Amino acid sequence: MEHEHDAFLAQAIQLAQEGMSSNEGGPFGAIVVKDGQVVGRGNNRVTSSKDPTAHAEVVAIRDACARLNSFQLTDCVLYTSCEPCPMCLGAIYWARPKAVYFACTKDDAAAAGFDDSFIYQELDKTHTERKIPMFQGQREAALRVFTAWQSKIDRIDY
Amino acid sequence: MEHEHDAFLAQAIQLAQEGMSSNEGGPFGAIVVKDGQVVGRGNNRVTSSKDPTAHAEVVAIRDACARLNSFQLTDCVLYTSCEPCPMCLGAIYWARPKAVYFACTKDDAAAAGFDDSFIYQELDKTHTERKIPMFQGQREAALRVFTAWQSKIDRIDY
Repeated sequence: MEHEHDAFLAQAIQLAQEGMSSNEGGPFGAIVVKDGQVVGRGNNRVTSSKDPTAHAEVVAIRDACARLNSFQLTDCVLYTSCEPCPMCLGAIYWARPKAVYFACTKDDAAAAGFDDSFIYQELDKTHTERKIPMFQGQREAALRVFTAWQSKIDRIDY
Repeated sequence: MEHEHDAFLAQAIQLAQEGMSSNEGGPFGAIVVKDGQVVGRGNNRVTSSKDPTAHAEVVAIRDACARLNSFQLTDCVLYTSCEPCPMCLGAIYWARPKAVYFACTKDDAAAAGFDDSFIYQELDKTHTERKIPMFQGQREAALRVFTAWQSKIDRIDY
C-alpha cells in the first residue's frame, strides 16, 4: 500500500512539473483516485486561465466530480504535490474524499514564495483587522432567505 | 456610501434567493463590484453543477476575473449574502479584492444547516487527527519542482 501511495504522489508531482514547464501556472499538481483508478487530474492554472481559484487541488476536484457526476468524492483519495492552502483545504472538506496525501509542506511552499501561511493567520483575526477588511450589514434580509431554505420542500441538501 | 453598500448587499441577497428558487443550489449569492459597477455575479451551484467548489463567492470571483481578464480583483469589493466559509475566504485572499461585505454570519449559516465552523476547527488539528486524515510522503521529489520554479526565468508570479 505504501508503494501505491508513493506512485500516486509521483503522478501528482509529475503534473506539477508539466504544468510549470508548459507555463500553465505554479508548480503544483494533484490527482483524485477511486478504487485504484485516477478519476481526476489538475495542475495550477491560475495565470493561464486568469482564475485565482484554479489551484491544482480545486482543478482536480472539479475534474473528478465532473467525471463521477457527483458533488461528493466519496471513497476517493486526493494526492497533491503540496500541503493544501486554506482554500483547497476547504474545498477538500466540501468534496469529502476519505483521505489526502501530500508531498511538500506549507513551509516548503512559503520558502518557494507561496506564502499561504499568512491566510491561516488572517483566519484568527477579527473581521476589520484583516488585511482584506470585512464588514457586515443587511443581516435581517439575508436571514429571510435562510428561513425560506429551511422550509423549502424540494431542497437538495449537500 | 453606507447606502451604496446596502444596495449591493441587497443584490447579493437577491441572487441567493433566485438561485435557491431555481434549484441551482443553496441559499447563497455574491457579487463583485469595481468603480461602482457590478463586474461579477454568483450564486451557489453545488448541486446543479455537481461542483463542490461552486459556492457563490467562488462563482462570482471566477465570473469577475473572466470579465476583467485578470487573476486579481484589484480595487474590487466583494458583497456576499453570508460570511465566507474557509474555502471562499481563501479564494478571496488569492483574488485580493480591497474589501468584503457580508450579511449573515457563519453562526447564522450553521443554524440553517451549513456548518462550516467545523472546517475552521479542523484547521487547528494535526494532520492525522482530522476527520479527513492527511499523510505526507515524497517530499524530496516535490521539492525538486519548487527548486526548478525558483530558477525558472520566464515564470509568472501570482
